[in-house]
Amino acid sequence: MSERRLGIIMNGVTGRMGTNQHLVRSVLAIMEQGGVRLASGERVMPDPILVGRNAGKTGDLARRYGVERWTTDLDAALDNGDDELFFDAATTLARADLLRKAIARGKHIYCEKPTAASLADAIDVYRLARDAGVKHGVVQDKLWLPGLRKLKLLNDAGFFGRILSVRGEFGYWVFEGDLQPAQRPSWNYKKDEGGGIIVDMLAHWRYVLDNLFGPVRSVTCRGAIHVPTRWDERDRAYDVTADDSAYAIFELDGDIIAQFNSSWAVRVRRDDLLTLQVDGTHGSAVAGLRDCRTQSRVNTPKPVWNPDVPSSIDYWANWDEVPDSMDHDNAFKAEWELFIRHLYEGGDEPFPWNLREGAKGVQLAELGLRSWAERRTIDIPELEA
Amino acid sequence: MSERRLGIIMNGVTGRMGTNQHLVRSVLAIMEQGGVRLASGERVMPDPILVGRNAGKTGDLARRYGVERWTTDLDAALDNGDDELFFDAATTLARADLLRKAIARGKHIYCEKPTAASLADAIDVYRLARDAGVKHGVVQDKLWLPGLRKLKLLNDAGFFGRILSVRGEFGYWVFEGDLQPAQRPSWNYKKDEGGGIIVDMLAHWRYVLDNLFGPVRSVTCRGAIHVPTRWDERDRAYDVTADDSAYAIFELDGDIIAQFNSSWAVRVRRDDLLTLQVDGTHGSAVAGLRDCRTQSRVNTPKPVWNPDVPSSIDYWANWDEVPDSMDHDNAFKAEWELFIRHLYEGGDEPFPWNLREGAKGVQLAELGLRSWAERRTIDIPELEA
Amino acid sequence: MSERRLGIIMNGVTGRMGTNQHLVRSVLAIMEQGGVRLASGERVMPDPILVGRNAGKTGDLARRYGVERWTTDLDAALDNGDDELFFDAATTLARADLLRKAIARGKHIYCEKPTAASLADAIDVYRLARDAGVKHGVVQDKLWLPGLRKLKLLNDAGFFGRILSVRGEFGYWVFEGDLQPAQRPSWNYKKDEGGGIIVDMLAHWRYVLDNLFGPVRSVTCRGAIHVPTRWDERDRAYDVTADDSAYAIFELDGDIIAQFNSSWAVRVRRDDLLTLQVDGTHGSAVAGLRDCRTQSRVNTPKPVWNPDVPSSIDYWANWDEVPDSMDHDNAFKAEWELFIRHLYEGGDEPFPWNLREGAKGVQLAELGLRSWAERRTIDIPELEA
Amino acid sequence: MSERRLGIIMNGVTGRMGTNQHLVRSVLAIMEQGGVRLASGERVMPDPILVGRNAGKTGDLARRYGVERWTTDLDAALDNGDDELFFDAATTLARADLLRKAIARGKHIYCEKPTAASLADAIDVYRLARDAGVKHGVVQDKLWLPGLRKLKLLNDAGFFGRILSVRGEFGYWVFEGDLQPAQRPSWNYKKDEGGGIIVDMLAHWRYVLDNLFGPVRSVTCRGAIHVPTRWDERDRAYDVTADDSAYAIFELDGDIIAQFNSSWAVRVRRDDLLTLQVDGTHGSAVAGLRDCRTQSRVNTPKPVWNPDVPSSIDYWANWDEVPDSMDHDNAFKAEWELFIRHLYEGGDEPFPWNLREGAKGVQLAELGLRSWAERRTIDIPELEA
Repeated sequence: MSERRLGIIMNGVTGRMGTNQHLVRSVLAIMEQGGVRLASGERVMPDPILVGRNAGKTGDLARRYGVERWTTDLDAALDNGDDELFFDAATTLARADLLRKAIARGKHIYCEKPTAASLADAIDVYRLARDAGVKHGVVQDKLWLPGLRKLKLLNDAGFFGRILSVRGEFGYWVFEGDLQPAQRPSWNYKKDEGGGIIVDMLAHWRYVLDNLFGPVRSVTCRGAIHVPTRWDERDRAYDVTADDSAYAIFELDGDIIAQFNSSWAVRVRRDDLLTLQVDGTHGSAVAGLRDCRTQSRVNTPKPVWNPDVPSSIDYWANWDEVPDSMDHDNAFKAEWELFIRHLYEGGDEPFPWNLREGAKGVQLAELGLRSWAERRTIDIPELEA
Repeated sequence: MSERRLGIIMNGVTGRMGTNQHLVRSVLAIMEQGGVRLASGERVMPDPILVGRNAGKTGDLARRYGVERWTTDLDAALDNGDDELFFDAATTLARADLLRKAIARGKHIYCEKPTAASLADAIDVYRLARDAGVKHGVVQDKLWLPGLRKLKLLNDAGFFGRILSVRGEFGYWVFEGDLQPAQRPSWNYKKDEGGGIIVDMLAHWRYVLDNLFGPVRSVTCRGAIHVPTRWDERDRAYDVTADDSAYAIFELDGDIIAQFNSSWAVRVRRDDLLTLQVDGTHGSAVAGLRDCRTQSRVNTPKPVWNPDVPSSIDYWANWDEVPDSMDHDNAFKAEWELFIRHLYEGGDEPFPWNLREGAKGVQLAELGLRSWAERRTIDIPELEA
Repeated sequence: MSERRLGIIMNGVTGRMGTNQHLVRSVLAIMEQGGVRLASGERVMPDPILVGRNAGKTGDLARRYGVERWTTDLDAALDNGDDELFFDAATTLARADLLRKAIARGKHIYCEKPTAASLADAIDVYRLARDAGVKHGVVQDKLWLPGLRKLKLLNDAGFFGRILSVRGEFGYWVFEGDLQPAQRPSWNYKKDEGGGIIVDMLAHWRYVLDNLFGPVRSVTCRGAIHVPTRWDERDRAYDVTADDSAYAIFELDGDIIAQFNSSWAVRVRRDDLLTLQVDGTHGSAVAGLRDCRTQSRVNTPKPVWNPDVPSSIDYWANWDEVPDSMDHDNAFKAEWELFIRHLYEGGDEPFPWNLREGAKGVQLAELGLRSWAERRTIDIPELEA
Repeated sequence: MSERRLGIIMNGVTGRMGTNQHLVRSVLAIMEQGGVRLASGERVMPDPILVGRNAGKTGDLARRYGVERWTTDLDAALDNGDDELFFDAATTLARADLLRKAIARGKHIYCEKPTAASLADAIDVYRLARDAGVKHGVVQDKLWLPGLRKLKLLNDAGFFGRILSVRGEFGYWVFEGDLQPAQRPSWNYKKDEGGGIIVDMLAHWRYVLDNLFGPVRSVTCRGAIHVPTRWDERDRAYDVTADDSAYAIFELDGDIIAQFNSSWAVRVRRDDLLTLQVDGTHGSAVAGLRDCRTQSRVNTPKPVWNPDVPSSIDYWANWDEVPDSMDHDNAFKAEWELFIRHLYEGGDEPFPWNLREGAKGVQLAELGLRSWAERRTIDIPELEA
């Protein structure tokens, strides 16, 4: 069976997510399993070159995982015609310019979200890629979380009847950094370094809602800086300038209301770090990252409001597990494989999760911030095709 | 020990809440325990007269519970100078006019919320009572729910540090009435009969927030009619014209954000029919109707985002019960006793939960509906003193 | 509110079922609750006269329950024009003739099943009643068992998708009578006294299947006498001549297969004495007499056939209770009330469970016996309207 | 201790059952334990050669498990006189011809069931083997399931008294393949590829009944295609042409009735994927694949039919576990060992589970299909000795 090589320029994978999810659990895991098998029977074998600004860190990473090629010279890497795909997981602030460069050299594009720091840039990058005829995809990993795939299965099965509402709770307590080290980097809390939970999470909620429940038509969002002082990686106190929490209400096609709380200043008393509750006429479900539980219309208890005595109903019972009847690969790797197949088998069709979709995420974050500033609901205009 | 009689004109207590909570578990229970003991040692013994429009129902109710006095003639009852307190739990639409009548005859006032169908009426009734010099109180029962009293205890104890946010989830699935009977009356779902969850529940959230966390300064509210067709008490389908769900964000003094979902079209996967989660710098709590659990700053786990494997943290652990260290009487009776004491011992001080406070509930509901219509955040003006 | 009297001639209620279900828990319970309320607001109050062959037993029964009227003279009772309804729960063998007599005197008819010992008689009685213009109903109590009502609710809710099959298991071990007394009368096991489980139970399965799942179109039945010797009420051994077990397969409209085992020679390892499992494309349910549990398509586990190790799946989990969201009155009383209402409010419509429906039960039993004798599947012809 | 080599030509073991059960857990496990010890003290060591049509798959399998010999040339393998035993687990449709070939070359025969696609072929192959004087055996693995061995132990112990009836429930829900992948191959659901649950399972029920309870004398069978559309291994919808469910009643010697449901369209609410309930005059048992529970005559409760209240009897109690007092080896391996011993120690006696017994399974399946087509009970003629 023949094998094709795919040269991948991987930029900015020395960070935690870049290393763990994109390098180790996606690209290296694909190499280890013998590549991606195409419908033709051919196998595509990735051949990555790591690119980073810090030679020490980048070289160490390459050595630790046995990656043969690495460099600090991005331009030289982009000039190598044998490497056809450019992947970026470095800082958001630099992303748009990097993508423009790579597109100009005819590279295919795969990158993390947000695809740019502003909607104007995100759209511009999309247009450039589209007009250049390169293939492009954006990481929208949460769609391949087992819990969310189970929600999709439920919806495909018609389990919900008509969906009425979605409640999302995302977040956990990020330590301030004084008593114990924070578990997120300090730039997350600084506006001018691209931080803020609205910029981060609304980009996720856009594709989650669009793909699972229906197009988002409006946003009402109230951000907040609940914890105004934090301590950074060097134990220095700093002022938080970016929102650490967001309370949002989205209107979706089909009269669906999606109410999402996102916060790094909340303690977790629920099934998981992210939970999505979906209520429909015929049934409801609550999904976490991996699990999903349902309550059908016919199993719905009839509560009696009687606060004088403890409730006779256990509200945790009558919820049933959706079993793991499918294999769940790593969510990042799953999308990597789909994108690699798309490179060879996609024909003229756009990748379903491409730079246009990525721009939609940037759009929702931008309009969410505007809704907060203007204290009103903002309608979401259509992006050009 | 001497005993004073308190003649109470009880109007509209043939309904489920009126009968169970106000007549049986409050007034009759107070009579059975020998009245309300004042600081002076005197006891105040209620002497109710039931007033209702339907002679059959009212007479039946009086006989069933051994209440000696009942009538269908409200005017005659109000003319009886020996009955000093007028209580109303009949339909909201008629309430303001009834209160005006009773105030004109110099009665003290105690009534259910909402105190009127419009803010203008609610304020007018408050002014009339204030100017007439009668004493007045409004039912704000949820303040005496054991779970909410525990939240107050936590706050009084400084447990939360600075409070950052409050998340409220209220609701359950009210059956449509086709497959099985609905557990709420059909007027709840009809605009022109005073229905709607915003009118009902925002009146509650106003006093809960004001009393437990701080004055509400703005409201952002999105109502919805999720279930447009229901079946009434006679199995006839009808169109729902009043909101059955509301997604609201409140801004409170002290930069507290309170996000509340209220719905009769949601299935319950949480600790209770109403849960309030409070997050503060030093600790968090989740209260139900009766129970309350806390997680202190120092017990907060450090989650790792790793959806590849089931979480190693049980997010239900590390939450500790607040024990029942106080007696919890019926919430309605608790406020009845406070109001009866206020009648005799209140001096010139207004009752803390009076018609002015009641008007605030009507105000929040009215502005919540306006926020929904105008799709923007509405600031809450101060009511005159 | 006005009240109407309904004179009921109750024949043969000294047996266990007649006394407990029809007299005490139905007619007397209706009297105690103040009769049956019609839509007009009128109340119908039963006034029974007990009729039995044994004066001692009948008089005792009347005295024990405070029934004022009783007699051993059925003809005289039938001649009393003030008693309009004839009810029969005496032996099957005499039923058809009794019904003919009562119809001839213009009585309305309500009776136990089977409505006759042969299909020819059952049809004849139906025709007589129809042509005489009297109202008629037949006891089909299992339809009002809570477990079966829940199955109906599930089907009405579309829970099953398309129904594929129904599995019924009915029965328990009836003691032979040698070591310990039998818990059923000996005539049940004697052909010439009207015994046999096919005659008894197929009459039930007919209306259960017809009403809940669809018209029965064919029957394949294998009866058996598993226990050939039993001991009667006087401890005398006797030969069993009637089938004590039946293994049946029914074909229903809509390509539904219903497989039912009925046996008095089986030990019970299941949820209840009667269990019905319904499997549909979208979900399955298993009902007992009172409870019902469901498994939805989306909660269905994926078993792996691996007998080397204990199964990792608990096949009892992932089944959810259908909650008791409706009031469940006694099944016999529920039908009594419907029939009494039908007498006054039924107009020209036949009662849904009338002598024609009763004849269908006799038909299924008769064809079930034929299927056994001829060792083949028998199609069920339509009865005339 | 001397060791004898047994050359085994293993055909068609690349499938899931062939690989797991016959190669790995039987032949390789026997090799690993040092072979099969004969009464003489000698050990028989298998020496397999794998035969498959697909060189890639067969070679991979050989390498993965360290099997030295493999080939795609079946004829050459059969021509090797050093390999005395031919084993076949490939497709049913080709089996008879392969067995004829192997018999013609003087090989002993061991094979999966069904032994042929038609009874005529199955008998012909049996006669050929018998007349050729080779030894022959057929896989009848369920006899060595721990649960069924416990039933045999109970019967040998006289626990049941006289057996009255056997109820078998086999099956589970095989996913349609649209929402999630099916867990059985698509050929199972295609008539012309040898599919159908009657062909598959009635071959099992024949030897289970014959061996455990008594010779099967007649069959009444209703097959069904409950799920008419499924999705295959490549996600293409296809029409189901073979029965996915069968409702059967067998008559056995000794007036035993055996009622068996087999289905791939049933959800499982029972102890195991296969349960057998046996009722006898002195006791009953319910066996799963591994466990078995009994209720003796003297522990049988006396149920009261009273649907007004929840049953006071827990029908799951009063059943006692049959302990694991014997070692339970893998069921397939157990029979392999018996057959290998038979090769050397069997003398002139036929193997108890030989091609004649295998033909009986084919016979029952064939007559089951005929019963369905002709809608009648079919008697089972004796096969020639």
